[in-house]
Amino acid sequence: MLLLRHCRSLTRVGLLKTQRVQLLQGAALPVAVCAGSLCARWGSSHGGHKSGQYQGSHGPNWRHALAGLLAGTGAVLAYGLHHSQTEQAATTIVQPIAPASSLPIYTQDEVTKHRSVEEGVWVTYKGSVYDITEFVSMHPGGDKILLAAGGALEPFWALYAVHSQDHVLEILSEYKVGELSEEDRRKQQSVKSTDPYSTDPERHPALRINSLKPFNAEPPPEILSDNYITPSAIFFKRNHLPVPQVDPKSYQLQVEGVPGGVSLSLSLEELKTRFPKHTVTATLQCAGNRRSEMNKVKQVKGLNWGIAAISNATWSGARLKDVLLAAGYRSEVAQQTSHVQFEGLDSDVTGTTYGASIPLNKAVSEEGDVLLAYQMNGEDLPADHGYPVRVVVPGTVGARNVKWLGRIIVSEEESSSHWQQYDYKGFSPATDWDTVDFKSAPAIQELPIQSAITQPVEGAVVERSAEEVTVKGYAWSGGGREVVRVDVSLDGGRTWQVAQLQSSEKGQVPAPSPPPGRAWAWKLWELTAPLPPAVQELEIVCKAVDNSYNMQPDSVAPIWNLRGVLSNAWHRVKVTVKEDEEKQKLL
Amino acid sequence: MLLLRHCRSLTRVGLLKTQRVQLLQGAALPVAVCAGSLCARWGSSHGGHKSGQYQGSHGPNWRHALAGLLAGTGAVLAYGLHHSQTEQAATTIVQPIAPASSLPIYTQDEVTKHRSVEEGVWVTYKGSVYDITEFVSMHPGGDKILLAAGGALEPFWALYAVHSQDHVLEILSEYKVGELSEEDRRKQQSVKSTDPYSTDPERHPALRINSLKPFNAEPPPEILSDNYITPSAIFFKRNHLPVPQVDPKSYQLQVEGVPGGVSLSLSLEELKTRFPKHTVTATLQCAGNRRSEMNKVKQVKGLNWGIAAISNATWSGARLKDVLLAAGYRSEVAQQTSHVQFEGLDSDVTGTTYGASIPLNKAVSEEGDVLLAYQMNGEDLPADHGYPVRVVVPGTVGARNVKWLGRIIVSEEESSSHWQQYDYKGFSPATDWDTVDFKSAPAIQELPIQSAITQPVEGAVVERSAEEVTVKGYAWSGGGREVVRVDVSLDGGRTWQVAQLQSSEKGQVPAPSPPPGRAWAWKLWELTAPLPPAVQELEIVCKAVDNSYNMQPDSVAPIWNLRGVLSNAWHRVKVTVKEDEEKQKLL
Repeated sequence: MLLLRHCRSLTRVGLLKTQRVQLLQGAALPVAVCAGSLCARWGSSHGGHKSGQYQGSHGPNWRHALAGLLAGTGAVLAYGLHHSQTEQAATTIVQPIAPASSLPIYTQDEVTKHRSVEEGVWVTYKGSVYDITEFVSMHPGGDKILLAAGGALEPFWALYAVHSQDHVLEILSEYKVGELSEEDRRKQQSVKSTDPYSTDPERHPALRINSLKPFNAEPPPEILSDNYITPSAIFFKRNHLPVPQVDPKSYQLQVEGVPGGVSLSLSLEELKTRFPKHTVTATLQCAGNRRSEMNKVKQVKGLNWGIAAISNATWSGARLKDVLLAAGYRSEVAQQTSHVQFEGLDSDVTGTTYGASIPLNKAVSEEGDVLLAYQMNGEDLPADHGYPVRVVVPGTVGARNVKWLGRIIVSEEESSSHWQQYDYKGFSPATDWDTVDFKSAPAIQELPIQSAITQPVEGAVVERSAEEVTVKGYAWSGGGREVVRVDVSLDGGRTWQVAQLQSSEKGQVPAPSPPPGRAWAWKLWELTAPLPPAVQELEIVCKAVDNSYNMQPDSVAPIWNLRGVLSNAWHRVKVTVKEDEEKQKLL
Repeated sequence: MLLLRHCRSLTRVGLLKTQRVQLLQGAALPVAVCAGSLCARWGSSHGGHKSGQYQGSHGPNWRHALAGLLAGTGAVLAYGLHHSQTEQAATTIVQPIAPASSLPIYTQDEVTKHRSVEEGVWVTYKGSVYDITEFVSMHPGGDKILLAAGGALEPFWALYAVHSQDHVLEILSEYKVGELSEEDRRKQQSVKSTDPYSTDPERHPALRINSLKPFNAEPPPEILSDNYITPSAIFFKRNHLPVPQVDPKSYQLQVEGVPGGVSLSLSLEELKTRFPKHTVTATLQCAGNRRSEMNKVKQVKGLNWGIAAISNATWSGARLKDVLLAAGYRSEVAQQTSHVQFEGLDSDVTGTTYGASIPLNKAVSEEGDVLLAYQMNGEDLPADHGYPVRVVVPGTVGARNVKWLGRIIVSEEESSSHWQQYDYKGFSPATDWDTVDFKSAPAIQELPIQSAITQPVEGAVVERSAEEVTVKGYAWSGGGREVVRVDVSLDGGRTWQVAQLQSSEKGQVPAPSPPPGRAWAWKLWELTAPLPPAVQELEIVCKAVDNSYNMQPDSVAPIWNLRGVLSNAWHRVKVTVKEDEEKQKLL
């Protein structure tokens, strides 16, 4: 279940700050105007209750401020603001600053209770406890700071490089209220049991958990579209079984079944040294991404994914093609084979391993870019993403990108695994569990065109006085088809505007257009549009087009299927437009 | 403009025949029941007025009869029926049979006046004139016979091999009413003028003409789905310029621009003998197919194509890849080049030729199957389809399949032709002629998933007593993506049923599934479903799914674009359900 919390009554704080800054500096600092306006609805995996608003925006300028903040100037502006504010504070109230040794000791449980503006926003950092309630409305990154409320700052700061500056620590230090208990500091390393999931790695607290065992989780959408390359920690996780513990020293990758060839057994070192290293930026998407929208039509079987079971990373490794060639693959003698099967090292209690296969032509194509990846975003694969080696099949459904890869088998048949034969297939809305014939549908390989809105979120409130609304999201298509356009509607699909596409980190030079059929990475997109006059609600809709001019279907029901896969209808988000209080009073 | 005619009042005739046959043979011949029931609305390029109905179906059996007819038994059944009928006729009325010499001479103009059951249905065959009005309701192929009304039978019989049997001529001879004037027999060869279109070839009279100069026409949908391989004569024609007269003896194909290679000049003979002959069955579709549906939303620029600017043929020729290799193409030295341009020999008054280009990787791919075709359906290319040589780029929009091919240029840039740069591109519904920037959109290459209903046609009437309705159509996707499912709805898209797919001529063994990414040919499909109870109208809808699970958008308006291309929303056809007269009387 997605849980949402709110950040009410920050507007007043934001306004106060603005006024103070104006008094001190003689000019309005746009960042101050921005402070309250970013208080949008948000969600976390921890709990809370449903609500959420866009509040406190007092003119069109906040957007420009935001653009500046996102471009990296935010921290500096925030620093200036903070100093102005503390100066001001010093002139009005006397705050006793306790010596470090005298600060109280808090347990993690006590910290966890402080996760809202009303009850205080506490965080921990390197064993110390901070009450940052006052800082929330000044945070240059907006209310995303609340994702860390009640827990540790480290995993969030790791996502945003802007925090690794001395002045940020300096700001933080002023909010220190205590120390974390020694026991809680050590707790995280201590859990051991017979539970096969007990050795699963630690995960990022921002993730929204759909299933704990096996672990399945997605990042909050607002975070997802902050980075063109998704940080590994918040890259969606989709495990079918416990994460296997693989010793990289004894790891051997088996390669079998190449007609007229030989079987290979490759150590991790051999994989890294015998074959050229290739790097590909590729988006992976779970077949069940956006399943929750199908559940609203009629219940389906499967994890209730939101819109973020999709992420983009840079993968490095040996090309599968090169490894197959080393095993003696030659197209002339391989006429009978047409599939390449993959077996994972993850297994259930019966010893059955995860398995999948892809068509041989994808595996051996010069342009297929299939990797046996040992790096993700420039580092060893994280445990959740297949350490030490996974297959990356760009343009192909996540389920075929087998993690913890143990065996590769060239064969005449597809993988016989459950996940290839009796799962991850699409059916007509008319097909139910009584009538389904899994043999009648092809295993999903390439995925269709997809897009979704990450900001604003459902139920958000925009102020009429903002005059504009900014909509953000992602778009991607399978099979290496490049996204060429995203249309955005503010009126439920009656009229449309074209969004700006982004194919690299913001502020970086856009990547050159990929060769035809090799556009493996998503595009982020953004549209800032005037608020339509005289409406109290916006139904924001997006739809993308790829370079085969495939388009998303309009509605969910006609593509509904019993497993809730391939959910790629137009994405819709409703937000409320709030008239200015002044205007309302006049009316 | 598509002109439609009707075939009213055939029901009565059909009923009479049925009764006679029953009397004579002591058992109901299903074909007789069928006679009137196929009287569906239809169209021709000749003129007429709008109407059309499904009539005279008196039970569920007629469908089985129809299946038999289409499987080749129709002619035999028709023969039996005809004999029964003429026997019966002989016992009731005396028909004087005039000697051949005494029959009147008719001009083509006089024949042309007889194009409906009310005014008589006349046809010509080998210079003789026949009044087949009485036979219309007995025609085993249903009312399609009316497509030939007022004109020659030859082109229609050429489409349906079942007619080349002696007894068919025997039946026809009994309806002879005169001879065609000598002048009209010779007329067709005599036109000469300075009109650049004067040397355009003769076309099949069944084609619905969208533009005469240049010639653009499509077959009636009901005919389109009769054949898995579309006969060349009714294959949709999409010319941009006059058809050039090319002398096959002096024809030279120029090949230029291969980096590090040589220029080639190949005669037709060389093309046929120096390179292996490959054969590919591939569907071609005009980017503007189904444009008429966009025109209903808001006027677009372009020919008002119906649903039949798509056809399927077998093409034979040299592979483009082999010709480029002969010109010295090597991928290692061709890094800078990424397009292959084609120039046609057709040109306008300024000498500007038709041109287009495709991505180099498609041209040189082992699996791209791009042909320099010199045969269509086993014969020399017809003049309208590019004689002597055209490019066939399977999976790619018709516009890149350049006809009357004169020159091939490997280059860094796309073709600079109008049709590559300022046409055949897709835009947002928000883009109009004031705001369009043709540089902002990619040239259409692969086309998106498509399907349409060929039978029944809009406005048809089905009898409640038929209890069932049969729906037929085609489905195809670009880029070699195989159609894996067609969903059909009888209630406007609320509920769905899965149609049967057909990937070869009816009655033939289905073709094996093509290799992944090389499904170049369409699938025909058919669904016979019970008539829903208590409805007076069916809104029949179809939507197809390809093996990348791309799906068609639900509605036209959100994909509307100023050029009216890429029109692939769900296809919708409304038909009326007519309650039985007996039941109506009881009510």
